[in-house]
Amino acid sequence: MTTTASRTVSFIFALDLAGTFLFAIEGAMAAGQAGFDFFGVLVLGFSVALIGGVTRDILIGAIPPQAIKDWRYPATAFAGGILTFALYSHTLVIPRPLLVGLDAAALSLFAIAGAEKALDFGINPFVAALMGTLTGVGGGTLRDVFLARVPIILRTDIYATAAFTGAVVMIVGRQLGLPPRVAAVIGGLSCFTLRVVAVWQHWALPRLPGE
Amino acid sequence: MTTTASRTVSFIFALDLAGTFLFAIEGAMAAGQAGFDFFGVLVLGFSVALIGGVTRDILIGAIPPQAIKDWRYPATAFAGGILTFALYSHTLVIPRPLLVGLDAAALSLFAIAGAEKALDFGINPFVAALMGTLTGVGGGTLRDVFLARVPIILRTDIYATAAFTGAVVMIVGRQLGLPPRVAAVIGGLSCFTLRVVAVWQHWALPRLPGE
Amino acid sequence: MTTTASRTVSFIFALDLAGTFLFAIEGAMAAGQAGFDFFGVLVLGFSVALIGGVTRDILIGAIPPQAIKDWRYPATAFAGGILTFALYSHTLVIPRPLLVGLDAAALSLFAIAGAEKALDFGINPFVAALMGTLTGVGGGTLRDVFLARVPIILRTDIYATAAFTGAVVMIVGRQLGLPPRVAAVIGGLSCFTLRVVAVWQHWALPRLPGE
Repeated sequence: MTTTASRTVSFIFALDLAGTFLFAIEGAMAAGQAGFDFFGVLVLGFSVALIGGVTRDILIGAIPPQAIKDWRYPATAFAGGILTFALYSHTLVIPRPLLVGLDAAALSLFAIAGAEKALDFGINPFVAALMGTLTGVGGGTLRDVFLARVPIILRTDIYATAAFTGAVVMIVGRQLGLPPRVAAVIGGLSCFTLRVVAVWQHWALPRLPGE
Repeated sequence: MTTTASRTVSFIFALDLAGTFLFAIEGAMAAGQAGFDFFGVLVLGFSVALIGGVTRDILIGAIPPQAIKDWRYPATAFAGGILTFALYSHTLVIPRPLLVGLDAAALSLFAIAGAEKALDFGINPFVAALMGTLTGVGGGTLRDVFLARVPIILRTDIYATAAFTGAVVMIVGRQLGLPPRVAAVIGGLSCFTLRVVAVWQHWALPRLPGE
Repeated sequence: MTTTASRTVSFIFALDLAGTFLFAIEGAMAAGQAGFDFFGVLVLGFSVALIGGVTRDILIGAIPPQAIKDWRYPATAFAGGILTFALYSHTLVIPRPLLVGLDAAALSLFAIAGAEKALDFGINPFVAALMGTLTGVGGGTLRDVFLARVPIILRTDIYATAAFTGAVVMIVGRQLGLPPRVAAVIGGLSCFTLRVVAVWQHWALPRLPGE
């Protein structure tokens, strides 16, 4: 592995851990709101944080997945869950703008890191962008499945779209010759900005008339 | 790889793409009826079309799955989703017999292609028939999970049964010495016929009394 | 593979088949209560019995999973499902204590066998305990997803906690130098006892206030 590849890998690692921590907190909060017990809070935090990356790793052939090989991933997810459980009763109200911002940040981190890793494993750019999207939205989808409700990201909101857009921007940037880190930052900011502005401005994609 | 194996592979490929397109349309229509937005329609079409084959590939050890390695699978699924979205408002009513027929065709294609591929990977015939069934019914199962309802194929209807029957007929035909393509056609027709007649005649399997 | 490793593997195999049979019966009973047809009963029995181990195998890199390579796993699961279907109408009432005991036994078998296998594949002890937990609770989780309800193990009850505890006891026992079988038995008994006493005494973990 060249030094550049090593740097890319350690960059992905840092992004992954930060996103893992943020998503674990979100998953744990959803579990708390649904009245889950302590273990359920940990499990939902854990699942939301790691399922996207684990699924991506299985699909691109990185087996065992990073989150299984490396105990720091589950440990980070559990830390997020325990922290949430401990603080939940003290700080019942977290301002919604902060929640949206943190979630958008985690989404951006996962989308970019996921697409990067897929590219590193030789997946073609189109599918790599999808893998980035999956990494970003897999956790929230599983959370809703576990809460027995239609995944919110499928029904409404510019969420998966933001992840996909960020991944595409990053990949196009790379192919235009930008240094990988610069492309990653621009892609991540695209995802973050699109997501935050979409929430703020109530942007939505067109829908079918339904029944 | 011998020429016969190549022909088998390209035959599987054609079956897979056709089934992918049909299932993507079905998944997209279900998403449209549930009021999903444009991205949700694409995602559900994509998931319904590809999850069965992707799961099969992971289980039989064909990693990365074909639908990840080969961009033509996701592209076909997206084409089905976009087409559905574009035409949905113009052709609100699709006659139910046509829907049943198309769905039965896709089920047959996936069941046979799935069982063929499992055999090619050295999976034993009994499990290969199950893999064919999984390929056929995985998409519809995930669709119902995403729509937060009990998978219809588990509760009623001769659906998975038709897929399993078609796969078994194909495998038995091969073991009786029929050429692979002939066995595939007979198996596929068995699945298609059983499914269509079951819907038409309201056939159902015995049920437990429930609660 | 050394003789000790072979013995460990055959020990895991026996535990796995016994747990598979028990969980298949439970899955099939849940399907029957939900009014599923014969095939749905088989599928749910099959899924509940095998999904935990299959997921574990994929995650630790044992691909194809044992339950796919070895037809005795699906055959055992189907036998449990068919037996349940055949006897369901005759013995409508199974005493709840027996159900709880059988379920706790299957949970213990799966948790220990799952953690053992993860260790054998070089997974670190912390994650191996999680893999044991996953093996034990994966089936019940999928059952509830298929029944479109919030997985009961996430919301309440000392269930996953018992599986995790048993796996940890087994792993700590091994690291203290106990022979693998002794560690397995002590770990399994820990899980079983904790689960049964928790149901009997209505023990529960602390919960967040919810909404």
